[in-house]
Amino acid sequence: MTTFQRIVLASRPHGEVKPDNFRLETVAVPALQEGQVLVRNHFLSLDPYMRGRMEDAKSYAAPQAIDAVMIGGTAGEVVESRNPHFAAGDKVVGMQGWAEMGVAEGSMLRKVDTAHVPLSAYLGAVGMPGMTAWYGLTQIMLPKPGETIVVSAASGAVGSVVGQLAKLRGCRAVGIAGGADKCAYVVDELGFDACIDYKAGKLVDDLAAATPDGVDALFENVGGPVFDAALARMNPFGRIALCGLISGYNGEPMALNNVRQLLTMRLTLRGFIVSEHMELWPQGLTELGGLVATGKLKFRESVAQGLAAAPEAFIGLLKGKNFGKQLVKM
Amino acid sequence: MTTFQRIVLASRPHGEVKPDNFRLETVAVPALQEGQVLVRNHFLSLDPYMRGRMEDAKSYAAPQAIDAVMIGGTAGEVVESRNPHFAAGDKVVGMQGWAEMGVAEGSMLRKVDTAHVPLSAYLGAVGMPGMTAWYGLTQIMLPKPGETIVVSAASGAVGSVVGQLAKLRGCRAVGIAGGADKCAYVVDELGFDACIDYKAGKLVDDLAAATPDGVDALFENVGGPVFDAALARMNPFGRIALCGLISGYNGEPMALNNVRQLLTMRLTLRGFIVSEHMELWPQGLTELGGLVATGKLKFRESVAQGLAAAPEAFIGLLKGKNFGKQLVKM
Repeated sequence: MTTFQRIVLASRPHGEVKPDNFRLETVAVPALQEGQVLVRNHFLSLDPYMRGRMEDAKSYAAPQAIDAVMIGGTAGEVVESRNPHFAAGDKVVGMQGWAEMGVAEGSMLRKVDTAHVPLSAYLGAVGMPGMTAWYGLTQIMLPKPGETIVVSAASGAVGSVVGQLAKLRGCRAVGIAGGADKCAYVVDELGFDACIDYKAGKLVDDLAAATPDGVDALFENVGGPVFDAALARMNPFGRIALCGLISGYNGEPMALNNVRQLLTMRLTLRGFIVSEHMELWPQGLTELGGLVATGKLKFRESVAQGLAAAPEAFIGLLKGKNFGKQLVKM
Repeated sequence: MTTFQRIVLASRPHGEVKPDNFRLETVAVPALQEGQVLVRNHFLSLDPYMRGRMEDAKSYAAPQAIDAVMIGGTAGEVVESRNPHFAAGDKVVGMQGWAEMGVAEGSMLRKVDTAHVPLSAYLGAVGMPGMTAWYGLTQIMLPKPGETIVVSAASGAVGSVVGQLAKLRGCRAVGIAGGADKCAYVVDELGFDACIDYKAGKLVDDLAAATPDGVDALFENVGGPVFDAALARMNPFGRIALCGLISGYNGEPMALNNVRQLLTMRLTLRGFIVSEHMELWPQGLTELGGLVATGKLKFRESVAQGLAAAPEAFIGLLKGKNFGKQLVKM
């Protein structure tokens, strides 16, 4: 291979993301410098945070530059190495973006063992999404056995791990997801105690019925009416890990109405970005990898075929069309 | 005195509190049982939390019962004692409600020293409002020298203490208050670095100008647009002590729009009720009492004359008409 394909940000979205915000390019494979590694990426991870990076707004990270390769986590195989720590054939994860190949300094890659954990899982349950769940649960939600936890986007790459880890810690786990299929999966496959279909139109009542003892800790991925419904069920001194907020139709975040619950129930809420807590990744990934390898932590993937399918898959992800961790097989 | 006056809750408010939600009664002074103390209350504290107790809604405290004496903090003098720990003439603070006199078990009263701190201050800067400020600042806002803190309702009994304590800890203190008079007082008398008049119509711009380095910690007393404006200025890893939320016109709390800041700035927010942290009161009151006694902590009082004036003064407090700690002299 002397060339490879990549996708760059062509323009910033106004409201909904459109396919023409992206541009597919074919570029030459660069020559390696001393210390560098050439990787053939097999999987690209698509994640909601990418939507934020497409905006030119003040946030925790600099915006994605126009005409630069879209940011993204990748898992692949070393094809050439000028770094003594890597050899051809090594399986590695990194942040090589929406690209079939990439050149990286060795420090930007992490070797992974695929003997018991599939390569793609290092982008999901044993990667950033899994760590996001692990961090929010263990560092913010602080669940005790017998407590009730709620997680929105429960069938997704993050939410599915939150609920399973909570069950392993002796909690009642209640999910919120969109659609009967996803809810059935969350309960029947993942082992949550209940899952509320927010599309069924009775979110507040259904959540109340599923949380008879109230809610002690919440993992919030969505915001808006789903967040409001969960706030209404919080018990005194509840903890809220704020991980994501899906924008309303106009691109603005949805307003929160049950603000008073934060005060009257003396809740603690913390927004977090898991990549700022790398010191905990070895501990978290060890637990997550062990659970996946022994079948105690289940996950599901939606795999789009070929890099050219990435924009459509990403737009679908933002609309909740994926079912499980969204990947692109390249 | 064989009778005294008291005010009971006559009816629950629908929207705004009205004078006829209260009823003034004259009742007989009861005979003391063994262990009890009879107190002549000189001052009644009026506080925003009382509005919440008037509602029959799920909250951190049971609702105020109809026909029962309105809840409230009081400061007065023992007139008769059948308790060996109290003698006539002792100055005491308690929760005797909207009443000129009260009978209490000794455990419900706290003796105070008025040699260096005026009696009324034990209902304000050296009482529950002061402790509320002290707790929020020292336990949640965790200010470091050089940081910028913002406090809404800055001229009030709580907000005024938050800013002064923050200044003593080497912070830049910025207040938000309603009206030029209050703002002048906050800067000129209390020593805040700046105070924004939210009634001037340029809250967002004015707050940005007064916080050139952003905001590291927020003491939120108000909610709604004031909270949104402060959220917009928060720095990464900022801390928010949520102490109060004033309701909108229809009695519902105002929605919050800048929810995304909680996530993107990785903020920590905690709602709290200072009476749940009594273990810290001795430490806090020691600091507050020492600062008042030495003139380093200033406060201002609005004093209504006579118990019959309490309803009107309370309604004014809810509309921000008071200027400093609202008391009733009985």
